[in-house]
Amino acid sequence: MDTKTKLLDAALRLIRTKGYTATTVDEICRDAGVSKGSFFHHFPDKEALALAAAKHFSARADELFASAPYRAESDPRARVLRYVDQRRAMMRGDFPDFTCLLGTMVQETYVTHPAIRAACDAEIRHHADDVARDLAEAKARYVPDAPWDPQSMALYTQAAIQGAFILAKAHDDPSVGAECLTHLRRYLETQLTPSA
Amino acid sequence: MDTKTKLLDAALRLIRTKGYTATTVDEICRDAGVSKGSFFHHFPDKEALALAAAKHFSARADELFASAPYRAESDPRARVLRYVDQRRAMMRGDFPDFTCLLGTMVQETYVTHPAIRAACDAEIRHHADDVARDLAEAKARYVPDAPWDPQSMALYTQAAIQGAFILAKAHDDPSVGAECLTHLRRYLETQLTPSA
Repeated sequence: MDTKTKLLDAALRLIRTKGYTATTVDEICRDAGVSKGSFFHHFPDKEALALAAAKHFSARADELFASAPYRAESDPRARVLRYVDQRRAMMRGDFPDFTCLLGTMVQETYVTHPAIRAACDAEIRHHADDVARDLAEAKARYVPDAPWDPQSMALYTQAAIQGAFILAKAHDDPSVGAECLTHLRRYLETQLTPSA
Repeated sequence: MDTKTKLLDAALRLIRTKGYTATTVDEICRDAGVSKGSFFHHFPDKEALALAAAKHFSARADELFASAPYRAESDPRARVLRYVDQRRAMMRGDFPDFTCLLGTMVQETYVTHPAIRAACDAEIRHHADDVARDLAEAKARYVPDAPWDPQSMALYTQAAIQGAFILAKAHDDPSVGAECLTHLRRYLETQLTPSA
């Protein structure tokens, strides 16, 4: 693995464990097994690393979801519901392995680091756009007259997932997050089903 | 206002602006207009202040919601829906004035400060319990056979609200959070309405 990727992976792990401010460049270097000189060869400062980490995290998520089995589902409604099933199944193990870098960073940087805030926003919306495409297709096929907008619904799915992470972390139990996504799935199912 | 309350209010404001780690005891003292000696008279350290701030925040929320107009509503389903309406109406103005201290702190402290994590969990659940009571009453009256548990549904409302804060902060626009709560309200409405 190249030095830059090692640094980005270390940043992902550390920031998801203890947040952006508590994570130091020294720790990132130690965790990555990389010298500080090497760090500053790749990044002018911690903020620049955080911006690259947001892109890195998002690219990883793109990869993961692009190759997920649910993507092969031809029915768009099933695709949406199986997406939520996958997010629910991912609520397990160690928190830094499955929680969201973007939602974590934005909580503590949205005022003090506008560039990080904007990067988190862009990447959350980039992921929501994929969900919105499936939602738009499912809406057109099953509930064309439903009162909601696919983009707004897609953003809501991301809010529910982010909030599920928070409740799970607070209770120190990933299953609390999984249960939240059962509710999200039920909402989507009712909204994508024509009333009798 | 007494010194302790000034310190707690300053902590609420600062932590909701830039997070727990980035907020220093010096800044809290400056913001509160209180000497450092006075701080350490009341609190042994920043963590102790954070624990007290979690309780303080929660007591303020109790006050706010106990006296809210929706509490006078005799129909429990209307009480639940008007609770969400109130949470949605509160999504406006400056983020540190309406976002959640608990959800913000837990993101960056859940591993490094177990006592803060536990306090955030306890206070989030304390608030959810009020919602769960109304949900249980509404379920018993309107949808006794619904497959969901009121406690689980109440926790989900809190997850949706926490996630709404994150998306709103990321987009630097409280209305993004308000729109998320429109979805939460629609979910609750469908789940509290007997099928025809």
